Amino acid sequence: MATTLLKVSCPDRVGLLSRLSGWVARHGGNLLEVHQFTDIAAGWFFTRMEIETETLSLDLPAIQAAFQPLASELEADWTIRPAESGMKVVIMVSKLGHCLADLLWRWRSGELAFDIPCVISNHEEFREMVEREGIEFRHIPVAATDKQEAFAQTSALLRSIRPDLVVLARYMQIIPPEICAELHGKIMNIHHSFLPSFVGANPYQRAYDRGVKLIGATCHYATAELDAGPIIDQEVMRVDHFHTPADLVRIGRDCERLALARSVRWHIADRVLIHGNKSIVFRD
Amino acid sequence: MATTLLKVSCPDRVGLLSRLSGWVARHGGNLLEVHQFTDIAAGWFFTRMEIETETLSLDLPAIQAAFQPLASELEADWTIRPAESGMKVVIMVSKLGHCLADLLWRWRSGELAFDIPCVISNHEEFREMVEREGIEFRHIPVAATDKQEAFAQTSALLRSIRPDLVVLARYMQIIPPEICAELHGKIMNIHHSFLPSFVGANPYQRAYDRGVKLIGATCHYATAELDAGPIIDQEVMRVDHFHTPADLVRIGRDCERLALARSVRWHIADRVLIHGNKSIVFRD
Amino acid sequence: MATTLLKVSCPDRVGLLSRLSGWVARHGGNLLEVHQFTDIAAGWFFTRMEIETETLSLDLPAIQAAFQPLASELEADWTIRPAESGMKVVIMVSKLGHCLADLLWRWRSGELAFDIPCVISNHEEFREMVEREGIEFRHIPVAATDKQEAFAQTSALLRSIRPDLVVLARYMQIIPPEICAELHGKIMNIHHSFLPSFVGANPYQRAYDRGVKLIGATCHYATAELDAGPIIDQEVMRVDHFHTPADLVRIGRDCERLALARSVRWHIADRVLIHGNKSIVFRD
Amino acid sequence: MATTLLKVSCPDRVGLLSRLSGWVARHGGNLLEVHQFTDIAAGWFFTRMEIETETLSLDLPAIQAAFQPLASELEADWTIRPAESGMKVVIMVSKLGHCLADLLWRWRSGELAFDIPCVISNHEEFREMVEREGIEFRHIPVAATDKQEAFAQTSALLRSIRPDLVVLARYMQIIPPEICAELHGKIMNIHHSFLPSFVGANPYQRAYDRGVKLIGATCHYATAELDAGPIIDQEVMRVDHFHTPADLVRIGRDCERLALARSVRWHIADRVLIHGNKSIVFRD
Repeated sequence: MATTLLKVSCPDRVGLLSRLSGWVARHGGNLLEVHQFTDIAAGWFFTRMEIETETLSLDLPAIQAAFQPLASELEADWTIRPAESGMKVVIMVSKLGHCLADLLWRWRSGELAFDIPCVISNHEEFREMVEREGIEFRHIPVAATDKQEAFAQTSALLRSIRPDLVVLARYMQIIPPEICAELHGKIMNIHHSFLPSFVGANPYQRAYDRGVKLIGATCHYATAELDAGPIIDQEVMRVDHFHTPADLVRIGRDCERLALARSVRWHIADRVLIHGNKSIVFRD
Repeated sequence: MATTLLKVSCPDRVGLLSRLSGWVARHGGNLLEVHQFTDIAAGWFFTRMEIETETLSLDLPAIQAAFQPLASELEADWTIRPAESGMKVVIMVSKLGHCLADLLWRWRSGELAFDIPCVISNHEEFREMVEREGIEFRHIPVAATDKQEAFAQTSALLRSIRPDLVVLARYMQIIPPEICAELHGKIMNIHHSFLPSFVGANPYQRAYDRGVKLIGATCHYATAELDAGPIIDQEVMRVDHFHTPADLVRIGRDCERLALARSVRWHIADRVLIHGNKSIVFRD
Repeated sequence: MATTLLKVSCPDRVGLLSRLSGWVARHGGNLLEVHQFTDIAAGWFFTRMEIETETLSLDLPAIQAAFQPLASELEADWTIRPAESGMKVVIMVSKLGHCLADLLWRWRSGELAFDIPCVISNHEEFREMVEREGIEFRHIPVAATDKQEAFAQTSALLRSIRPDLVVLARYMQIIPPEICAELHGKIMNIHHSFLPSFVGANPYQRAYDRGVKLIGATCHYATAELDAGPIIDQEVMRVDHFHTPADLVRIGRDCERLALARSVRWHIADRVLIHGNKSIVFRD
Repeated sequence: MATTLLKVSCPDRVGLLSRLSGWVARHGGNLLEVHQFTDIAAGWFFTRMEIETETLSLDLPAIQAAFQPLASELEADWTIRPAESGMKVVIMVSKLGHCLADLLWRWRSGELAFDIPCVISNHEEFREMVEREGIEFRHIPVAATDKQEAFAQTSALLRSIRPDLVVLARYMQIIPPEICAELHGKIMNIHHSFLPSFVGANPYQRAYDRGVKLIGATCHYATAELDAGPIIDQEVMRVDHFHTPADLVRIGRDCERLALARSVRWHIADRVLIHGNKSIVFRD
């Protein structure tokens, strides 16, 4: 069944859900799934409505146009789009391929439905893994001495693609703040610790040194401040005194894969709404 | 902030959320939290709306009366009640007191807000633990040779109390089907296995014999069929080959406490809706 | 550092650990990791010792020969082998490839070190996925009308390979009891439920019908009785009322992958000892 | 069955397990449970042996004396004591009683076997809860202007008691470094975050502000540096965008109770060995 997704966040006021669901009803829309959250402390309202497309009395451009006046009145951030329209997802990777391989498998098997315009890497390791799936592989080396050039090239490429999501699937370079800003809410990083513990480099070694009994991974939107953007999902697993740093790396890979795959899933289904430094996730 | 809880389940049809939230809006109600679920396979609609009480234009009896026509039209099961009205919760226990003690602590500390008309037990062990909290303790022994007399007495007591919830907190007697039926959706059992594994007696010993690597507990509504009613929550913990049956009992106690406390919490906040043999739980 | 693995299970008696570690010491062996477990109820003793190979005063055949008299006295089941000797692992699969893909990735990346003589399937779906890794793919169709022929062929193939482990990675045919018996303790199945719940077919649908709040997967050694062999590992994830059977299948895939990968890891490192219907797992 | 616990940590060398288990065997001891761990990076060896007491050829003082020469040779930290000798556990608490209540229940029910010389608090809130269990309650107020006096009193009391363990069960004052040093490895704190995240005050509020999707609790030995001592256990639970700081506090209480109860359990059974800033925990 084809469905249309309405995603809205706006300042809270009385009667919002009634007005929004009433607006859908007046356009014939049958609501299949509705999520609503009011952040009382922040005074902000969030909703996601999944509508049976064929019940809508207008086509997509017309329904979008029809929503504009209400959206303006509510000062809302909003999108309306068909659930079936595959998002464009660019994956960036360096030399650790477990997240890339996992995403490719979920994509190939149909578990995650999106389009992959290309995979970008600062290394050549995964060219074959990517190209054998029929996906374009773009090698953009990042010289230690001149990262600016590489990121100018990356930025230009991303502008030409206009992705709905960029996934940093263990891409081990720090993305410049201006790219983070330009792709605000559309660039997702998997960090290999349960943030805010172990921000930055070598989190598994530092987890080992601290003697923690749980290790984890955190998927978050990238912002100018390193590892400090809105958290989408986290996963942890138990470890013990006998686990070496190499064991933590191994066990942590499964945390990373799980947290990343779920976060991508929610993003591409318009289930994540960002407000300030937090993510509202209407999970499925 | 005082709130009013509207809980509705009814056959699905187009526009239900809009009609219900519109109805609330027409009576001035400010919606603070809304959950909605449509079971497409079953063709059934469920919602729970939390409304700021002082915004409502009518008092409780009037608002209930005003909802009746819409409810009839929708063929809905429904309740409207103030969130602050403490439910009457009767706890039944035999000789294992960990769930009782846990509930009493959460109740005494204010974590769980309800009234306890009495604790019923077929043994005397916990009289002091109960009475020192200022709660009535009712000892109704269950003779192996004549259980009918004991349950007639129990049934009469429960009818006089008219509880909103009866918690079988490790009450080790099987409740007669007619009491389960009379208290349908209001009688909750904590079973010491992850159902449907190990229905019936001695689940920890049977878990040990089977060599499982996870043990668990299940909180469900009691129905005529033993351990087969709608599941509200489950909890599991890892075990290992070196755990004896006594270890499983010990570890399992924490599973039981957690699953039961959450289930009670959701029930008393009208967060659990029953449909057939399943529970829809709008968690907090 | 090369290591030698000693695995022993035998009837319990006083002084076993001292005798066994003393025997290792007398042959110069430096113990790096020792696990011991006494099942007091069963009167059985289990140990796994990891020894620095180069400290041993004898080579492998000689050290094996030297252990024989002690083993006989103790009526022990035992193995001594180099940790580096890759086990021969045959993977069997039908039409669901997530476990196969996961094992291949872990194998290719070096996370799991073993040899794959071939992958056996009753379908052709995964020929390319297997062959592109340079692994032999053997298609043995199983006709609904004559399964005996297929399993005779499978059995002959396995006999010629003499695998250390056969992994049923969602192989959807029931293995005949005689093959289970011949490969006792060497044939591992991943079942898509938290056993003993939902033995047999369609566990996710049955989990949905029962309304469980946790789904899971169980990796166990296959025996003549369906889904009843010694459990090696289990994994669970939370589910909710809004998850359809298809969602359970999707979420469950991650449970299956995790439980299977860990179980294979422990098997190939001689960390699993079987006694009756239970597994003693010295985890890493 | 009465058992004797031998706990040893010392610099690693070849043949340690053989020598130690051989020493036990020479004194007639039947080993019931043995754990061993070699920290190869640190070059340190750890073991815990549980011995059937009645098989030992010497009484406790004699067996302790007999072990002294070997311990000296190995430069070992060690203890030998009967498992049945109840440890003296002092509990310190401020105004949040959930951990205290939990420990008292586990102690009263026999789940945790130790002696409680007294409960110390800087407030009067829990006098009744403690005294009704027949336990001495010591009120030592901590004046904001002169904490030194209070801690001098506390220190004198602890010296007179000579506890085997002091549990800071949500004691909201910072223990002076000299008390931490004097009770090194014997003073345990439950911190309400998954350390090293949110060291110090108000961790739940800070977890809320950061938008984490998991909250947790950490039990660790207290050292001079705040919240930085060896971690014994950690527990986490999932939270969501709709959870307020008050919800995190509520959910976190269960994390705290579980992590603390397990840590106490392991400490009083000599299952925790400390090395530098880490804990080796031979779990049961």
